[in-house]
Amino acid sequence: MIERSLINDILNGIVVYETLRVYNGRPFALDEHFKRFSKSLSYVGEKVSYKEFLDEIERHLDFDRIKIYGIVNNGVKLYSIGENIEKSSTFSVRVDISDIRHADPFSIPPSFKALGRADLFLARKNKGENYDVILLNEKGFVCEGSFSNVFFIKNNVIYTPSLETGVLDGITRKNVIEMLKNMGYKVEEKMVELKELFYADEIFLTHTSRGIVSVEFLGKYRLETRISKLLSKKFEEFVNEKISGSF
Amino acid sequence: MIERSLINDILNGIVVYETLRVYNGRPFALDEHFKRFSKSLSYVGEKVSYKEFLDEIERHLDFDRIKIYGIVNNGVKLYSIGENIEKSSTFSVRVDISDIRHADPFSIPPSFKALGRADLFLARKNKGENYDVILLNEKGFVCEGSFSNVFFIKNNVIYTPSLETGVLDGITRKNVIEMLKNMGYKVEEKMVELKELFYADEIFLTHTSRGIVSVEFLGKYRLETRISKLLSKKFEEFVNEKISGSF
Amino acid sequence: MIERSLINDILNGIVVYETLRVYNGRPFALDEHFKRFSKSLSYVGEKVSYKEFLDEIERHLDFDRIKIYGIVNNGVKLYSIGENIEKSSTFSVRVDISDIRHADPFSIPPSFKALGRADLFLARKNKGENYDVILLNEKGFVCEGSFSNVFFIKNNVIYTPSLETGVLDGITRKNVIEMLKNMGYKVEEKMVELKELFYADEIFLTHTSRGIVSVEFLGKYRLETRISKLLSKKFEEFVNEKISGSF
Amino acid sequence: MIERSLINDILNGIVVYETLRVYNGRPFALDEHFKRFSKSLSYVGEKVSYKEFLDEIERHLDFDRIKIYGIVNNGVKLYSIGENIEKSSTFSVRVDISDIRHADPFSIPPSFKALGRADLFLARKNKGENYDVILLNEKGFVCEGSFSNVFFIKNNVIYTPSLETGVLDGITRKNVIEMLKNMGYKVEEKMVELKELFYADEIFLTHTSRGIVSVEFLGKYRLETRISKLLSKKFEEFVNEKISGSF
Repeated sequence: MIERSLINDILNGIVVYETLRVYNGRPFALDEHFKRFSKSLSYVGEKVSYKEFLDEIERHLDFDRIKIYGIVNNGVKLYSIGENIEKSSTFSVRVDISDIRHADPFSIPPSFKALGRADLFLARKNKGENYDVILLNEKGFVCEGSFSNVFFIKNNVIYTPSLETGVLDGITRKNVIEMLKNMGYKVEEKMVELKELFYADEIFLTHTSRGIVSVEFLGKYRLETRISKLLSKKFEEFVNEKISGSF
Repeated sequence: MIERSLINDILNGIVVYETLRVYNGRPFALDEHFKRFSKSLSYVGEKVSYKEFLDEIERHLDFDRIKIYGIVNNGVKLYSIGENIEKSSTFSVRVDISDIRHADPFSIPPSFKALGRADLFLARKNKGENYDVILLNEKGFVCEGSFSNVFFIKNNVIYTPSLETGVLDGITRKNVIEMLKNMGYKVEEKMVELKELFYADEIFLTHTSRGIVSVEFLGKYRLETRISKLLSKKFEEFVNEKISGSF
Repeated sequence: MIERSLINDILNGIVVYETLRVYNGRPFALDEHFKRFSKSLSYVGEKVSYKEFLDEIERHLDFDRIKIYGIVNNGVKLYSIGENIEKSSTFSVRVDISDIRHADPFSIPPSFKALGRADLFLARKNKGENYDVILLNEKGFVCEGSFSNVFFIKNNVIYTPSLETGVLDGITRKNVIEMLKNMGYKVEEKMVELKELFYADEIFLTHTSRGIVSVEFLGKYRLETRISKLLSKKFEEFVNEKISGSF
Repeated sequence: MIERSLINDILNGIVVYETLRVYNGRPFALDEHFKRFSKSLSYVGEKVSYKEFLDEIERHLDFDRIKIYGIVNNGVKLYSIGENIEKSSTFSVRVDISDIRHADPFSIPPSFKALGRADLFLARKNKGENYDVILLNEKGFVCEGSFSNVFFIKNNVIYTPSLETGVLDGITRKNVIEMLKNMGYKVEEKMVELKELFYADEIFLTHTSRGIVSVEFLGKYRLETRISKLLSKKFEEFVNEKISGSF
């Protein structure tokens, strides 16, 4: 029975994964996800072909979101799930700072995107009423949300934690930076101190499932959302154009 | 179909676990394992009854070793596997120091024993010819092997990294310390500098499956094994007595 | 010429020090300062007698504040300065968070109170318009000001960073904690996250020269000062009583 | 009286410094020392002119070594000392690993070369019979000696901790790297794990006063010194040529 063997592989091995968005039946940023999936597999000495990856993806193109897993235990087995995203009229959300520190890059390479990241799991589990919680890195610099990347606006410059901080090289993050630069914004990737979030004009999160999410509350403090709401809409257009342009 | 649902729980949730030894059909240190399993579950707000835990264990008492998993995703499901340990005449082994740092306790609580610990998995994956590799903690102090605890002997005193270093509160570790003290050894738990391992008279590992394992080589350096081989035998007797005494 | 030799000792050695307050011609907390001075000297294998320490202090009892230095370079030489404190009607001040991290206790023992602490010096040098700036420790937890300890009030409980955070075991800090407990406050020493300062009801600093200093602004945020102003007055009385009671 | 005022400046301010070698009446690497001295002063918003620096140096050209200090307290005052180095027939020395961690670059910028570095002072103070002790950085990577930089040879490649490790950008270090590359060696600057020192073929230290110093013992382990002794001689020639060539 295949399933039992798969369970044993999961329990004895490790599972890397990617989450892709599908728009109008087309997967977004497919090549970037394949590249990052391959990078994760490389840490455990494995790889899959582009065709194998694509075949798995193509089984779920009628869903909004695809999760593809590489189950690694003496070789790699692919597994995938399609999911729909509930329509949301959420325009702005509440976030807070997690008490759990993000895993040190010397312990867990940020580009090794594997299941069982206890730091992210426990942070998310304890986020309470917040949409997401932001983890600081091992030195107390702002790192990332439990499932999102963080940006903030101060005096019309847009900042986000640099990769050296330990953040995942998020594909939505990268696309958002590209769009912002195209729009003429100055975007700075750097080590972000927590005080900077508290002094920010606006804050927004980015993640695959929802693109740009405007933050209305950081803990007890209310933030402006004028620009980030605008950027959120712009990003939807940006993605749609990219999807259309990919023909 | 139960299996598919279980896979989805594993992929969307997190899995805590324990590994128990069975001697002559009796599980060793059952209560301590149940207590630690419960501690792990407490981090995600779950628990199981002693009876549920025991029922799962009792299905595998004809094996040498039992792995019991708590699959947590909107509730907890138990899953378990019995395994036999290949008889080994290994008396002494080679170890080295991993390049991967042990996860910081502020990121992942040491007593949260969950699958998917990428630091331990990657360290073990890259151990090469070594029996195990030893991870340093986030500050460079000696922490633990990827599946074992570390002890060393210097001038007849026995040292092992203290819990504040971030080591798992290993059950075999605890039993070994108890035995050593009973034997009249001075045992010191402390922050251990890596140089101390290189200056040690003897080194040994402890883990559930094999008890005490004498270390003959630390990288290129050969170590004495006289005392640790003796302790290894003594520990087998200690366990057998405990098992017999548990009636 | 004695002075040149002293300069050479300072430049080739290291200088430990204490700062004491004098009230009505009597030094405050003399024994505690002697004890801490001796602790600092112990790191470099030196000591002075109580009499030597006292003789040095007694030369400046007509000042408000005495700085006593132990210049360590093949033995220890004492040096001291008396200073007056300008009268201030400052009741509340502005503070901010420094970009400089507090030295790690594994690098510089917090109880080794020596000149040339570059972290504290640079933080103070760059404090701008702020009364003091607060340094985070090496993991991003709140540590201490460049010349003060930090307290905050949340829901009528008073918190301050615990010694394990790396703070100097401040004598004013200790006296303030004693007074607060006498007054019936719950005082908790713990690892303080920076977000807790931003969510605090009130914040105050403590240091030898001014006792309790109420914080009105943390960066751009205005804080309540009702309780801390009251505590500031109470502490003056507490010190005066201690001074009087010391006969 | 000038001296008393100077002492007060030292005690209330901070002191940056450089140590230069003099060969045949000519200061070695004068421009590099001036540049680094200026860098140190820049952290406290001060500077001196090249002429002022040179005037100070020229007073001591009949010594082997010049220490020049910038005493910073509301402006900067220069102070300098000439010293002779006792002739040594030391060819190889013993080193060990310090228990004190090197200050974190986020606390004390490595290029801020100031007196009162308690980490370096305490390490040196407790070096015992060793020529120098090597400090690990805040994560446990090899950093530098209390007054020297560290190099090691493994399979004919020469390694030294990279600047990101937190080492001082040593002028002798830089000149040694230049010479080694000129000689055709592969030199790699990187994050060095402590185990690599224990597995090294040869180790050597570099510092201004003695150039290259061959290490014969790392703790209890004896090392080869064949290549490093050769390099030590070569470096003397290299310096002499540079000095001669500087006309």
